[in-house]
Amino acid sequence: MPKICQNAKNNYESSFMMFKKIYIFGLGMMGASLAKAIRYKKISNKIYGYDINKKNLFYAKKNNIINELESNNYEHLSESDFIILCTPISAYKSSMNIINKYKKDDAIITDIGSTKESIDILSKKIFENHNDIFIGSHPLTGKEISSITNSDKDIFNNQIVLLTPNTSTKKSLINKVTRFWKSLGCKTRIIGAKLHDDILSITSHLPHLVSFALVKIILNKKYISKIEEYTGGGFRDFARLAHSDAKMWEDICSNNPKNIVSSLDKIITELNLLKSNIKNKKFKKLANYFNQTKLKLEKK
Amino acid sequence: MPKICQNAKNNYESSFMMFKKIYIFGLGMMGASLAKAIRYKKISNKIYGYDINKKNLFYAKKNNIINELESNNYEHLSESDFIILCTPISAYKSSMNIINKYKKDDAIITDIGSTKESIDILSKKIFENHNDIFIGSHPLTGKEISSITNSDKDIFNNQIVLLTPNTSTKKSLINKVTRFWKSLGCKTRIIGAKLHDDILSITSHLPHLVSFALVKIILNKKYISKIEEYTGGGFRDFARLAHSDAKMWEDICSNNPKNIVSSLDKIITELNLLKSNIKNKKFKKLANYFNQTKLKLEKK
Repeated sequence: MPKICQNAKNNYESSFMMFKKIYIFGLGMMGASLAKAIRYKKISNKIYGYDINKKNLFYAKKNNIINELESNNYEHLSESDFIILCTPISAYKSSMNIINKYKKDDAIITDIGSTKESIDILSKKIFENHNDIFIGSHPLTGKEISSITNSDKDIFNNQIVLLTPNTSTKKSLINKVTRFWKSLGCKTRIIGAKLHDDILSITSHLPHLVSFALVKIILNKKYISKIEEYTGGGFRDFARLAHSDAKMWEDICSNNPKNIVSSLDKIITELNLLKSNIKNKKFKKLANYFNQTKLKLEKK
Repeated sequence: MPKICQNAKNNYESSFMMFKKIYIFGLGMMGASLAKAIRYKKISNKIYGYDINKKNLFYAKKNNIINELESNNYEHLSESDFIILCTPISAYKSSMNIINKYKKDDAIITDIGSTKESIDILSKKIFENHNDIFIGSHPLTGKEISSITNSDKDIFNNQIVLLTPNTSTKKSLINKVTRFWKSLGCKTRIIGAKLHDDILSITSHLPHLVSFALVKIILNKKYISKIEEYTGGGFRDFARLAHSDAKMWEDICSNNPKNIVSSLDKIITELNLLKSNIKNKKFKKLANYFNQTKLKLEKK
C-alpha cells in the first residue's frame, strides 16, 4: 500500500509575519475568509486582494478584509511573496497566466480548489519552475453561501487541509505551505493529486451530487411546503450541501469527471441492491447490510 | 389539494399532571428519553415502564427514569391512563395484544414509530374501539445511538411531531395527544397515515438508505483510514445517519416497502441523469440542474 497520507512535520514555527505580502487572487467567500484569518493570525504584513468583480474588491477594501486592492497593472501581485488562487477552477488558466506574467521570481503559489490533478497539470504547463513554486492545497472547509459577505475568519480552525505535491515538488515549498496552513489552525495531510481526486470523488463530490438529487426530489414532491416540517436534523445538515455554488460544482464535475462517474456508478449499484432486497422482501439481508455498515463505521 | 397539514389547536393548557399514570412500553433510547422528558416537565404523577430486556428495565428504575418497573402480570399497565408504545415496529403486534388485554377501558394509546399506515391497520384489528383510544405519533427527533444509556430529556424540545389520525378518530383524543406533545415542547402537525408514509419515504427513509449506501462505499474504499480526514462537516452530520439502529431500518423498510421502492427509483433516475450529463460533458446542463435546485431550495 502506498504511503499516501503522512502527517506533515510537527516543527511548528512561529507564524508571526511568515510572509511579508500575501496576495489573495479571488475574493469570494473562501478567499475573503482566508484574508480575514491571515489578518487575525498576523501571518503577513500586508494582504493584497484581487477580484474580477469590482463589488467584491471594494467590499473587501472598505471592510478591511485586505490592506490594498489591486487596481491596475498588477503592481501588488508583482510585490507579493505568497499568492493564493481562490477563483473558480474554470478561471484558473487565465489567472495562472496573469500570475506567471507579473509575479516575483521567488513568489510561491498555492490554490484552494476542490479537484487537484487537472490543476497540477495546468500549473506544470504555465509555470516553468512549477516544482519550486506551486503546490496545490484543498482545505476541507467552507460554507454553503458563497458570497464575500458570508466570509468568516474562523472556518479554518481545526480543519483539515490536503496538500498535493507531486514527487518532484521542492521539499522546502511543501514545508513552507504546510506551516502556513498550520499557522491558520489547520491540520495538514499530504496526498498525491490523482489519489486526492479519486478519494474526494467519493467522500465529497458524490455526497454533494446526492444532496442536490435528494433535495430536487423532495422539492418536486407535492404537499411538502416546508422541508423542515418532515425531516430530522441529520438530513437538514446534509440538505445544506445543496445550497452550494452551482458554478463551483460545474467546475468540479468538469475537472474530475471519470472519478465522479465511477462514484455515481457505485452508489447506483448500492441503491439498486437495496431496492431489490426491499422489493423481494429480503429484509434479513437488508438488516445485515445496515448492521455491517454500522459496525464498520463504528470501528473507524 | 387536500388539507394535509394544519397546525393543531393553540389552546395550550397547563401540562401539569395532565395524566396520573403514563406507561412507556419499550425503554430504548426513545422510550427512556420520553420518560425523562415527561418527568422533567411534570406531565404525570407516575411513570411506569416495561421492556422485554431486563437490563433496560433495571437501568431505568435504578436511574429514576421511571417510577416503577413492570415486574409481572402487567399490573401497572392496567392502572395507566396513557400508554406510549416505543418498541421496534416488529414487536407492535405482540405489544398491542398485551396492551389490549390489560389496559383500563378508558386508557389512551399512542406510539412513536417511523411508519404509520401499517400500524394504523394493525391497531384497528386489535383494539375494538380503535378510533376512541389510539392515534399514531411520529416525533421527528432521535439520536443515532439507540441504547437507553444514550437517552436524553432534551431531544423533544422544539421538534416536530406528526400525528396521524384517520377520519373517524375521536376529536378529543387528537386534542389530548396533541396537548401531550406540546407540553413536551414539541410542535405538532396533523397528516393522514398514508400520506405520512409517502412523504416520509422521501424526506427521511430515502436519506437514511442513501447514507447507509454512501458510508458503505466510503468504507470499502482503499486508502481511507478515517472518513473524517477526507470529508467536510455537512457530510459528517449526514454520515451519522448510518449509525442508526439496523433493526429499526429493517422494520421501516418492511412496513413501507412500496413508497421506499418508488423513492429509490426516483433518486436512481436523478443520479443516472447527473451521470449522463457528466459523461457527455453537458456541464451547462449540470450547472442549470444545480442552480435550479438551489434557487428552489432558497425560496422554501
